[in-house]
Amino acid sequence: MVWPETTKHVAQIMKYADENGIPVVPRGAGTGMSGGAVPLGGSMVLSMEKMNRLLELDTGNLTVLVEPGIINGRLQREVEEHGFFYPPDPASMNFCTIGGNVAENAGGPRALKYGVTRDYVMQIEAVLPGGDIVNLGVRTHKGVVGYDIVRLLVGSEGTLAVATKIRLKLLPLPEDVVTLLCLFTDLEAAGMAVSRIVSAKIVPRTLEFMDREAIKAVEKFNPLGLADDVEALLLIEVDGHAETIKKEAGKVADICMKLGADARMAEDDAARNRLWECRRRVSPSLYHLCPRKMSEDIVVPRDMIPQMLTSLRRISEDTGVRLVNYGHAGDGNIHVNLMVDRTDEEEYKKADAAVREIFKVTLGLGGTISGEHGVGITKAPYIGMEVKQRELGLMKGIKNLFDPKNILNPGKIFP
Amino acid sequence: MVWPETTKHVAQIMKYADENGIPVVPRGAGTGMSGGAVPLGGSMVLSMEKMNRLLELDTGNLTVLVEPGIINGRLQREVEEHGFFYPPDPASMNFCTIGGNVAENAGGPRALKYGVTRDYVMQIEAVLPGGDIVNLGVRTHKGVVGYDIVRLLVGSEGTLAVATKIRLKLLPLPEDVVTLLCLFTDLEAAGMAVSRIVSAKIVPRTLEFMDREAIKAVEKFNPLGLADDVEALLLIEVDGHAETIKKEAGKVADICMKLGADARMAEDDAARNRLWECRRRVSPSLYHLCPRKMSEDIVVPRDMIPQMLTSLRRISEDTGVRLVNYGHAGDGNIHVNLMVDRTDEEEYKKADAAVREIFKVTLGLGGTISGEHGVGITKAPYIGMEVKQRELGLMKGIKNLFDPKNILNPGKIFP
Repeated sequence: MVWPETTKHVAQIMKYADENGIPVVPRGAGTGMSGGAVPLGGSMVLSMEKMNRLLELDTGNLTVLVEPGIINGRLQREVEEHGFFYPPDPASMNFCTIGGNVAENAGGPRALKYGVTRDYVMQIEAVLPGGDIVNLGVRTHKGVVGYDIVRLLVGSEGTLAVATKIRLKLLPLPEDVVTLLCLFTDLEAAGMAVSRIVSAKIVPRTLEFMDREAIKAVEKFNPLGLADDVEALLLIEVDGHAETIKKEAGKVADICMKLGADARMAEDDAARNRLWECRRRVSPSLYHLCPRKMSEDIVVPRDMIPQMLTSLRRISEDTGVRLVNYGHAGDGNIHVNLMVDRTDEEEYKKADAAVREIFKVTLGLGGTISGEHGVGITKAPYIGMEVKQRELGLMKGIKNLFDPKNILNPGKIFP
Repeated sequence: MVWPETTKHVAQIMKYADENGIPVVPRGAGTGMSGGAVPLGGSMVLSMEKMNRLLELDTGNLTVLVEPGIINGRLQREVEEHGFFYPPDPASMNFCTIGGNVAENAGGPRALKYGVTRDYVMQIEAVLPGGDIVNLGVRTHKGVVGYDIVRLLVGSEGTLAVATKIRLKLLPLPEDVVTLLCLFTDLEAAGMAVSRIVSAKIVPRTLEFMDREAIKAVEKFNPLGLADDVEALLLIEVDGHAETIKKEAGKVADICMKLGADARMAEDDAARNRLWECRRRVSPSLYHLCPRKMSEDIVVPRDMIPQMLTSLRRISEDTGVRLVNYGHAGDGNIHVNLMVDRTDEEEYKKADAAVREIFKVTLGLGGTISGEHGVGITKAPYIGMEVKQRELGLMKGIKNLFDPKNILNPGKIFP
């Protein structure tokens, strides 16, 4: 394990690794969900945690230059103090690093309105396998000179290059936010609400979903006192000008109430934080209940959410695997948790069959097998279900172009 | 010249071209500004104009699937009828095709708030050199399975693959728009206004700029009756909820008036269209005045606009080349027109020296030599000023991976 402090260190390490044929695994905080930062046999771990500075806040041009080891939540707080806004907010935002976010193209609840990490990366300084330092992208909001290598690196899961500096786009901080909690006694009604809100041409900044099992898991550790007959909840936020968002929130509440929901509005920051705490604790609570569970990250077109939820219930019944679902319903992104012990051979076999069936239905509805967690190790065996041979061949060709000796994060993405 | 009507036709043509070593130049409407669609010696032109259908408007999921030959303006009108919005609006929107927009990563006035073509492309069906058909990207708003080849194709200027189907993201149509025309008697004050509006955390949807020479050129063909002492104008639009945009427009007008501007608000669609007509006619008017002019497309960080305008004036005086400037000031994107006859050897030499000086200053301010026009033929000799050897090597490697025989649009981008 090495802890570089400068770009030059990273270049020296990459040169050494290249000359000695040692695989290198770049690592931020290790919070990723698909094993991208997990070293496989004989690898050197390149921890970026000491390269964690905010180098330049460019207030005149709404950009910020950071080192990859900076924590997402720290960056958010620092720019918010100046009235700026960095939207991508993965649930692990208080621990995960921007470098890891870039490697995985991290999303988060606000992706619905504001997009994902990819939409904010303007420039990357990176070290290539072999040790060459490259500067990619532009610091302006437009630029079309040559191929877009910046966005090729975003989401490449540390397999093509090691980012050493990252320039991100910022937005002005929205004036105000309204948070709504809507409780449904019927699961499909919650799915329907998502689809109706989107069709009503309202773009909330978040539209989060938790099913009964997810709620129960959180209630165990962080009780909100929700009624036992709640089958699903939606946590919805609209932001923008104070004058208009109350009206928008009212429209959202109307849609949910017409579908039988009980809607509550968070009136202050304390109430808002309490609602969000519930959402943020889902993942840790589920690990607490079932430490070796499997976590999937499917996405379907947003209007297919009700159909997908019905299919998940059927697959759970058919395979006998307990499923807990939550996620970013507004994006069609559902985190499906298989509550099994994946180290138990019997259970793993059953779970694998369930996963394959879930992916089959997802892809049949026009979806994808990973919305924001990446492929890493855990989804590599399934990538062929979504990406065909010729397309995969192009990706492998790109990998080979950047990393002909297969030094950088080998064994990830490609089966 | 061939006019395919289906993906299969394109695949057959590409296979034939590959087997016979015939270079292929994909072409939309040929409105590009850097020569990307211009065939060089011995090429077959692959016109996409007959593949111009809108295949599917997915209202539940806010996407639209089109063939590449569809005209941008037609697509905009068709989706607007259903209350949706496709923001990218190059000045040539009534003639240019979506396929060409994707190839060049086209921008336009609304890029300031809404981003460029890249930000709207979700899926591409494409034919590779050799004739293989590939399907890239996802139809959902998130997806991180494998490398992002979709965004590698966007802006690749027809050198990697031929798009045959394109799925685009749509937004809800904004409720209302206010248009402001601000006239300045001082050029630097106009540049300052741009920077102050951005710093005030207002994001107009457009913030267009024209200097005195550009205004004079348009006045000749489409008189608006602007006073002779107007040195620059800003055409500014804010959109959103009716209640809030009047207030925002008021703030923008205040900023401009404090810098000595005369501000006029367009009260209705007719007035708005008249103002825009003036902006849209700049480029044709300049060609009318000087048919063999050279057009540049620089971008600087937005707060460097005043400094860049001062430098352009100096370069014009130093080199004796008449410059006319207009463009998307909010993005820092200035279309610099060199009013020379580029076929005259003497004039070209002077102009080339001016261009190199303009690019040097632009890059020194942290800018780029092309914001939305691409590299094509005209900027290929200068690409080395911005992109270094190692980075260019990666791009050439990607070109070689997709197109090992250099069949597709050879002679473009790379010098």
